[in-house]
Amino acid sequence: MIIEKEDKLILVTNDDGLYAAGLRTLLEVMEEFGKVVLISTLESQSGMSQALTVKTPLRTKLLEENERHRIYACNGTPTDSIKLAINQLLERKPDFVVSGINHGANASVSVLYSGTMAAALEGCLYGITSVGFSLNSFSREIDFSVCRDFIRIIMNDLSAGPLPEGICLNVNIPAVKREEIRGMLVCRQSRGNWKEEFDKRKDPMGRTYYWLTGLYNNHEPDAEDTDEWALRNNYVSVVPVSIDMTAHGYIDTLRNRLNGSSR
Amino acid sequence: MIIEKEDKLILVTNDDGLYAAGLRTLLEVMEEFGKVVLISTLESQSGMSQALTVKTPLRTKLLEENERHRIYACNGTPTDSIKLAINQLLERKPDFVVSGINHGANASVSVLYSGTMAAALEGCLYGITSVGFSLNSFSREIDFSVCRDFIRIIMNDLSAGPLPEGICLNVNIPAVKREEIRGMLVCRQSRGNWKEEFDKRKDPMGRTYYWLTGLYNNHEPDAEDTDEWALRNNYVSVVPVSIDMTAHGYIDTLRNRLNGSSR
Repeated sequence: MIIEKEDKLILVTNDDGLYAAGLRTLLEVMEEFGKVVLISTLESQSGMSQALTVKTPLRTKLLEENERHRIYACNGTPTDSIKLAINQLLERKPDFVVSGINHGANASVSVLYSGTMAAALEGCLYGITSVGFSLNSFSREIDFSVCRDFIRIIMNDLSAGPLPEGICLNVNIPAVKREEIRGMLVCRQSRGNWKEEFDKRKDPMGRTYYWLTGLYNNHEPDAEDTDEWALRNNYVSVVPVSIDMTAHGYIDTLRNRLNGSSR
Repeated sequence: MIIEKEDKLILVTNDDGLYAAGLRTLLEVMEEFGKVVLISTLESQSGMSQALTVKTPLRTKLLEENERHRIYACNGTPTDSIKLAINQLLERKPDFVVSGINHGANASVSVLYSGTMAAALEGCLYGITSVGFSLNSFSREIDFSVCRDFIRIIMNDLSAGPLPEGICLNVNIPAVKREEIRGMLVCRQSRGNWKEEFDKRKDPMGRTYYWLTGLYNNHEPDAEDTDEWALRNNYVSVVPVSIDMTAHGYIDTLRNRLNGSSR
């Protein structure tokens, strides 16, 4: 693959592994927008968050190359994959980092655990316009085609102008028919948490072990400006996500609380 | 260990493993404030971020119990440890989740990768007042005593009143003598990124592999309201960290950008 000066260069990854259907759909749509370098893992890396591999060496392998894309396998996390591609594999800094399409939504507090969104955040840390896409279904048979139009709308917008420094997008798409989707809503991350998180079992030796599981508990199901509400009401949710985790609005109060103790 | 109604219950973890010196110091200071349940791993879990273990079963083991504390080993990430303790091991919801003392600072964008801060964020997701402590040194011989006074100041303040919902604290302590520390500063997360991130080598079979490494690149070294500035100038930095990653200030602009496309 030859990358010309005028070509957009798009770095693609996911956290469901190289053989995930959502990744193939994303690759196909990205080829409409530029030359694509795809890097992912053989196994799923779901729930890996922004994890880094520091105790084992990382390796990459070029699996496939044609006129439109190159595909690499990597043995690390989604964050490792983005770092390796940008530092070691790409001829130049990519124009976009695009992650997904994840099997399952990454709305609300899932953004903290998501490998898909970690890859987008990692691109954002490099100053690259970055997006994570997710489809709200865990079904193995789900059709990702419904996502195509919305990915195109987002990419057309981002091609017209980059995102501000330190901000990337978290896009979640309802798993319904195209004609049932009512449009796109720019939202905030919904407040919520997880409950009943473990399935406790005994192994054949009589020892206890646990599987992580759990149910999402939405703290504000009626808030129409949240991503959870959008998804449940058949809208595509678009949340601008910040790499700055500072609770800016609480700085003055905290300063007063700790005052007298400080300096 | 008997936990009386009037006892504060403190859940302690870290990402450097059960035998880290920083964890022992934190345990000792926490025993001044209440009954302690400590849960950690045998091996270090540095850089694990908010990673969840979804593909292998989780196990815990009670290693030690006395009048003041119980110590559990766990085979998961710091986030798994907090979830397991709250859901399966504790008699009641803890009053505090306290993580650290990490070997090495977790200032600036390190908050995104840090297992120490992920544990505090996890406590925060459960609505528990949570703090992560880190000492700005990777030396194996470093003395963590310098941290004691500042941990006490923070815990005394938090004992007087909880943090607001969705906010936890990221406390970084300079690795200098106690008398050289100029006080505590409430800060924001500094803008920065990592560069030169890989050490590329050949294995004995001639195949390429990479070690993750890298240098921190501070984008605003002169900003006196940042955690990086505080640490470099021998102040303890205290950053309020939000579990809401929405870039609220960009919502209206993004809505205008995507307008016409939406609905």
